[in-house]
Amino acid sequence: MKFNIALLAGDGIGPEVIDQAVKVSDAVAKKFGHEITWKPALTGAAAIDAVGEPYPDETHDVCATSDAVLFGAIGHPKYDNDPSAPVRPEQGLLKMRKKLGLFANVRPTFTFSSLLDKSPLKKERIEGTDLVFLRELTGGIYFGEKGRRDDGETAYDNCVYTRAEIQRLAKKGFELAMTRSKKLCCVDKANVLETSRLWRETVQAMEKDYPEVEVSYEFVDAVAMRLVQWPNEYDVLITENLFGDILTDEASVISGSMGLMPSASMGADIALFEPIHGSYPQATGLNIANPMATVLSAAMMFETAFNLPEEGKAIRNVVNKALAEGIVTEDLANGGKTYGTKEVGDWLAANI
Amino acid sequence: MKFNIALLAGDGIGPEVIDQAVKVSDAVAKKFGHEITWKPALTGAAAIDAVGEPYPDETHDVCATSDAVLFGAIGHPKYDNDPSAPVRPEQGLLKMRKKLGLFANVRPTFTFSSLLDKSPLKKERIEGTDLVFLRELTGGIYFGEKGRRDDGETAYDNCVYTRAEIQRLAKKGFELAMTRSKKLCCVDKANVLETSRLWRETVQAMEKDYPEVEVSYEFVDAVAMRLVQWPNEYDVLITENLFGDILTDEASVISGSMGLMPSASMGADIALFEPIHGSYPQATGLNIANPMATVLSAAMMFETAFNLPEEGKAIRNVVNKALAEGIVTEDLANGGKTYGTKEVGDWLAANI
Ligand SMILES: CC(C)[C@H](C(=O)O)[C@@H](O)C(=O)O
Ligand SMILES: CC(C)[C@H](C(=O)O)[C@@H](O)C(=O)O
Repeated sequence: MKFNIALLAGDGIGPEVIDQAVKVSDAVAKKFGHEITWKPALTGAAAIDAVGEPYPDETHDVCATSDAVLFGAIGHPKYDNDPSAPVRPEQGLLKMRKKLGLFANVRPTFTFSSLLDKSPLKKERIEGTDLVFLRELTGGIYFGEKGRRDDGETAYDNCVYTRAEIQRLAKKGFELAMTRSKKLCCVDKANVLETSRLWRETVQAMEKDYPEVEVSYEFVDAVAMRLVQWPNEYDVLITENLFGDILTDEASVISGSMGLMPSASMGADIALFEPIHGSYPQATGLNIANPMATVLSAAMMFETAFNLPEEGKAIRNVVNKALAEGIVTEDLANGGKTYGTKEVGDWLAANI
Repeated sequence: MKFNIALLAGDGIGPEVIDQAVKVSDAVAKKFGHEITWKPALTGAAAIDAVGEPYPDETHDVCATSDAVLFGAIGHPKYDNDPSAPVRPEQGLLKMRKKLGLFANVRPTFTFSSLLDKSPLKKERIEGTDLVFLRELTGGIYFGEKGRRDDGETAYDNCVYTRAEIQRLAKKGFELAMTRSKKLCCVDKANVLETSRLWRETVQAMEKDYPEVEVSYEFVDAVAMRLVQWPNEYDVLITENLFGDILTDEASVISGSMGLMPSASMGADIALFEPIHGSYPQATGLNIANPMATVLSAAMMFETAFNLPEEGKAIRNVVNKALAEGIVTEDLANGGKTYGTKEVGDWLAANI
């Protein structure tokens, strides 16, 4: 098969980790007889510096006409201290999500047995953790009307959801649950919010279409607690944009494997794949960033965007092999020798 | 001194734990020569059953004319499965907060060395944790306009904050920081929300009035992560209503001492004190509920509402003594004998 993949390296360590994912993807393509054409495009602070805009129209055109998007990381310290600056990298991210219609952010949290010790949680609490959040990504308070009144003394942000938006996301949740343990948790704050009541009522009405799926409804504050207490009791969780932002980040640290976690953002026409970690500016150019989360994001891309599970599996296997043999960057050091970003990427590509 | 204290026992284990706090408070009052008049009043499911309203006007009158409110817990399983039921216990809670003007919820999270093992987190991560959240409690998305349009197909919740509301809460945060380690963290989502930008700008403008306080600004998703990673790096945190709801619950489980955590909700005229745990319906009437969080809430009441630190200290000391000597309910069992709710209360009162 032939694929065009938009390549958005972004800022900080983005370009370094993206390079390794490209190498590994090319090795997989070669092995399985596919042909990938990479389409690099600017985003984030890098795009602001070049053309004054974090998600330029040219970049959008590249993404919209590709078969998938592989994304590094965005964010630069020079934008960190002034959240009201007129142009910021995050705006590019939000604009990209909206314009590409990436409504479902898929965020798995799973454990690697060799990394359990890295978790802040006790081993017996996290063993077997394997959960997936589906976070709604193009609605809610992120995109509702916002502004000031009373001469700037009052600020407001409106949170809005339609039944159709909720159905679209929940459908993905039910479908995912069907391929896993058939357990779905809808996270809301239906005891306070009207949008949450619409979420709950919409999901409840869909239950009859998936009679095998066991659905639970939990309040967001309770989930924030239970995620730390017993993460391994959850499987698929669906939630709205802001709750998802908070809970997926919370969940990411509990497994001890944060530096390895991939993610996908799915739309009707295209999907984007990226590591969950940020642009890690302090490490830029030092060849020390861990490329595995980005490499595993490429695995998700083969599996989900191209429907090629074998290819994805080949990548996951080589990552597991590297972990077992200690071919890792310094963040995963376990007393032994460690490797550079590039060296880990080379090893993975060579061992596909 | 003479005090009138409104006594809102509420539902589930509320009445049982409240009884113990009354006993201990009376013992302290006797020892220090104070006179307490308790004013019982209905709230929660108990009030719905009796008068059809979770926060009746008579209860409000009792609270508004007292020197403090001591609160047990509300919530009953018969209301759990239908968040859109017309009358629910939670509505009483929200109405009470609003009508009494309880704008600042003070939620400490600290560790007891004998309980470190109960935490889901590793000991070295939580040792020394001693943080306090100040959650804004009468504004934000909880109280903004909410509703439906498009024949019920679209739901909305408006989040609104005024500069004055933020200043009022932040002032308490700065003052509290001055009595502690002079570190204040403002938690927001200023990279996305206009209300958060107003929070940040308002707190930034107040920094000059408290030159000794070192203020940091962190995004809510980052705090949700860092709280699990390094809770002991935080001291005083201020935040808006919904973020506070999620983060205080998350923080409560990390110390391993959740069953012991008290809280206060402060207004301009009156303050309310309550344990952070819920009504624990399964344990109702079994004389097994841990009364210590409510007893420690009474300690906070003496300290904060009556400005009587010695009296508060006497309560804290006797709780520490009970923990050290194993005079605890079964949830804190450590192999040894355990005691009933009432027996723990009697012991505490006798040993004041
Ligand atoms: C950078 C920010 C706008 C973004 C979000 O809140 O969605 C980030 O936290 C994320 O989760 O991708
Ligand atoms: C019961 C609910 C309305 C309430 C809230 O969200 O404020 C509770 O979770 C709390 O934190 O006191």
